[in-house]
Amino acid sequence: MLFLVNGTNRPEFFIEKVILMRMYDIIVKKREGQALTDEEIRFFIEGYTKGDIPDYQASALAMAIYFKGMNGKETATLTQAMVDSGETIDLSAIEGHIVDKHSTGGVGDKVTFIVGPLVASVGVPVAKMSGRGLGHTGGTIDKLEAIDGFTTEITKEAFVENVNSHKLAVAGQTGNLAPADKKLYALRDVTGTVNALPLIASSIMSKKLASGADSIVLDVKTGSGAFMKTLEDSEALAREMVTIGKELGKNTVAVISDMNQPLGFEVGNANEIKEAAEILQGSDVKDLRELSLEIASHMSVLAGAFEKPEEARKALEENISNGKAFAKLKEFIEAQHGDGSMIADLNKLPKASHEVEVKASKSGFVSEIDAESIGVAAMYLGAGRQTKDDAIDHSVGITLKKKIGDKVEEGEALVVLHSNESNPVDSINKVEEAYTISDEETQAPTLIHNIIT
Amino acid sequence: MLFLVNGTNRPEFFIEKVILMRMYDIIVKKREGQALTDEEIRFFIEGYTKGDIPDYQASALAMAIYFKGMNGKETATLTQAMVDSGETIDLSAIEGHIVDKHSTGGVGDKVTFIVGPLVASVGVPVAKMSGRGLGHTGGTIDKLEAIDGFTTEITKEAFVENVNSHKLAVAGQTGNLAPADKKLYALRDVTGTVNALPLIASSIMSKKLASGADSIVLDVKTGSGAFMKTLEDSEALAREMVTIGKELGKNTVAVISDMNQPLGFEVGNANEIKEAAEILQGSDVKDLRELSLEIASHMSVLAGAFEKPEEARKALEENISNGKAFAKLKEFIEAQHGDGSMIADLNKLPKASHEVEVKASKSGFVSEIDAESIGVAAMYLGAGRQTKDDAIDHSVGITLKKKIGDKVEEGEALVVLHSNESNPVDSINKVEEAYTISDEETQAPTLIHNIIT
Repeated sequence: MLFLVNGTNRPEFFIEKVILMRMYDIIVKKREGQALTDEEIRFFIEGYTKGDIPDYQASALAMAIYFKGMNGKETATLTQAMVDSGETIDLSAIEGHIVDKHSTGGVGDKVTFIVGPLVASVGVPVAKMSGRGLGHTGGTIDKLEAIDGFTTEITKEAFVENVNSHKLAVAGQTGNLAPADKKLYALRDVTGTVNALPLIASSIMSKKLASGADSIVLDVKTGSGAFMKTLEDSEALAREMVTIGKELGKNTVAVISDMNQPLGFEVGNANEIKEAAEILQGSDVKDLRELSLEIASHMSVLAGAFEKPEEARKALEENISNGKAFAKLKEFIEAQHGDGSMIADLNKLPKASHEVEVKASKSGFVSEIDAESIGVAAMYLGAGRQTKDDAIDHSVGITLKKKIGDKVEEGEALVVLHSNESNPVDSINKVEEAYTISDEETQAPTLIHNIIT
Repeated sequence: MLFLVNGTNRPEFFIEKVILMRMYDIIVKKREGQALTDEEIRFFIEGYTKGDIPDYQASALAMAIYFKGMNGKETATLTQAMVDSGETIDLSAIEGHIVDKHSTGGVGDKVTFIVGPLVASVGVPVAKMSGRGLGHTGGTIDKLEAIDGFTTEITKEAFVENVNSHKLAVAGQTGNLAPADKKLYALRDVTGTVNALPLIASSIMSKKLASGADSIVLDVKTGSGAFMKTLEDSEALAREMVTIGKELGKNTVAVISDMNQPLGFEVGNANEIKEAAEILQGSDVKDLRELSLEIASHMSVLAGAFEKPEEARKALEENISNGKAFAKLKEFIEAQHGDGSMIADLNKLPKASHEVEVKASKSGFVSEIDAESIGVAAMYLGAGRQTKDDAIDHSVGITLKKKIGDKVEEGEALVVLHSNESNPVDSINKVEEAYTISDEETQAPTLIHNIIT
């Protein structure tokens, strides 16, 4: 009843009512499956960020979006409005075309530590903003802090200077980036509206765009250990994000990669730095090397360093063979005050006091490894954070000895736990839950399912 | 991430998180189109009433219900849970089977003042709880207060005593009836979730059930002036409410009646009392008399006074002819301290100082009368309330001179406004907006579309 709005003379009440009414119309419009205008989307995001629009209207709209979706233009506008809700990082002082990379997340994903130096080694600037966060293992910064002395607490000037000199630097995410996304995500998290494709896509892209990259390569995981369990859903999310990037004038490519088991063999903090360094030294951990080269190739092409991914790949492989990529890792670590000798000799990285094997209870073929359970097992060892005040133990982690498709004999080690306890029962149980051993031969899953451009 | 719940030792934080998580699961379950259990529905309603469950989760659930619906059992449980959220009225001291009647609302609906005395005149007890509320005209109590001295402020004992002696009494709705519904409705009103059938049905039925009736006759309006515009939607709502009644052991019948124009010829407070009294004196305002007899027949049958509606109708018509129904109206008014002489001589009812005709601008046939606009015109005269502090003017109102299908000449009166201003411009404009005059002959709309049992 619109006339109720006029039923009072208190102006603040009037304004509040008008905002509630306008937001009401937006909710109903979306509920009826209509596309929202740019102005309506901005009204929502600006009002919600300021606190003029209450949570209960925002959650109703989020649920309507869950059911009725948003078209590419709406989603792009939503993303841009969330970027504009806070600060953005100005990287214009950096020379060249800056490429960023984002993974939707998985267990054992240390691709950033490989592609950063790799891409930098062919002259493409990588200016990475990273976080810590809650999770099974630490975030990018936590993992790098496994190296003594390494710090991301550098001034903005030092950060820019490092990228210009070394083509690679990592900084902690400071500033108030996309606060609308932060607020909306927290609300979606408790109202069953996380899984709305346009909302997921705009959330990821708003953070990336606020961080100032010119182009973005997305690693969208698919499978039992991924946020998106089916290839169809993963492709849909990838397409949504690529559309947003294009609508907002940023070249965006998405790689759909497998997360039906942890990536590579190492899970943890020091463990993952070690495995990444080994790839740069030429180690052939198939899935990890392959995915890293694929992502690095697309990053290099988007930056304009090469015409085609195949050319980029050839140059990148050569920089692994000739040691340039590995040297770049060491150079970057030292530029951020890290102890380069721990990279030169990976045995110097933090080590846990105990190695505990978890053995196969029967012979057969590994048919499944639940990545989530491996992650939880690592967290129980101390590799991750349950709450933001928890400390990370850089030395603990898990080395997988068997992956999907591998033959295994009863009593053979499935994994080695690097633990600071002699008998980490909870982690052992979790690993046992994670592995399925079947009598029949199983194929390793396809690694790269699709490239969305 | 469920493990986050365990990430703190503060027990109040733990409990709050558990409630949020549990409600989260309920939202997701409904979002996925699954039926909620009795326990889940009660958890939601109890938690929401207490304030443990926040508005933003309740609105997300309401939107999920909008899209995914609820089955009959879920809706009945929701209704009962809302009844149980507050006080219920105990009418067990009243002799006989108590029937209540509810209308989904429309303009010119004075059926209650007719069926109350009618049904009471055949010995069926009518114990009516009524409200005031916002709207185009006053509520049931406001209209009755057009009669000098009439009061609903009587003790519970007097109310019961009046029903036992006179078979009819009207009391103001006191007590905290269905507070869950009150809270949820206010939230739905600003989140675009009013129009969810199970929520509308449970809202209406919870208030009726909390008022203590044994059986209920529902007058579900359909058409341009009704909450439900299409016959299909009105029937669906009626079926939903009849199902709830049956699931909860209350005989329930719904009459689907037309609201494509105001009911009868009078709109206002004194106006409507006058027209109702005239019907009881034998006046033949076709739609109003017909609908009242239909509803009163069903009420009498549900109360067990007659076997079949046709038998009931015969007796009710006879009580109009022989004056018993009209006498019952006067008896009831006087029992609640009203001035019976205003009923005996209807000219004594409050009268406005001016009669202003709104005339037809062309000749033809009345093809539409927008009931909502007529209602707003009456409100502008002072017949209703825009905010709860507004006073009602009992003397003002509108008399329709032409209804749909009527032939009209240019310059002939369409309505007479009973106004205390000489030139009520806003009301005149509204009435002009309301009427459509067409060159072609038009049929009066069907009055009673369906009976749902």
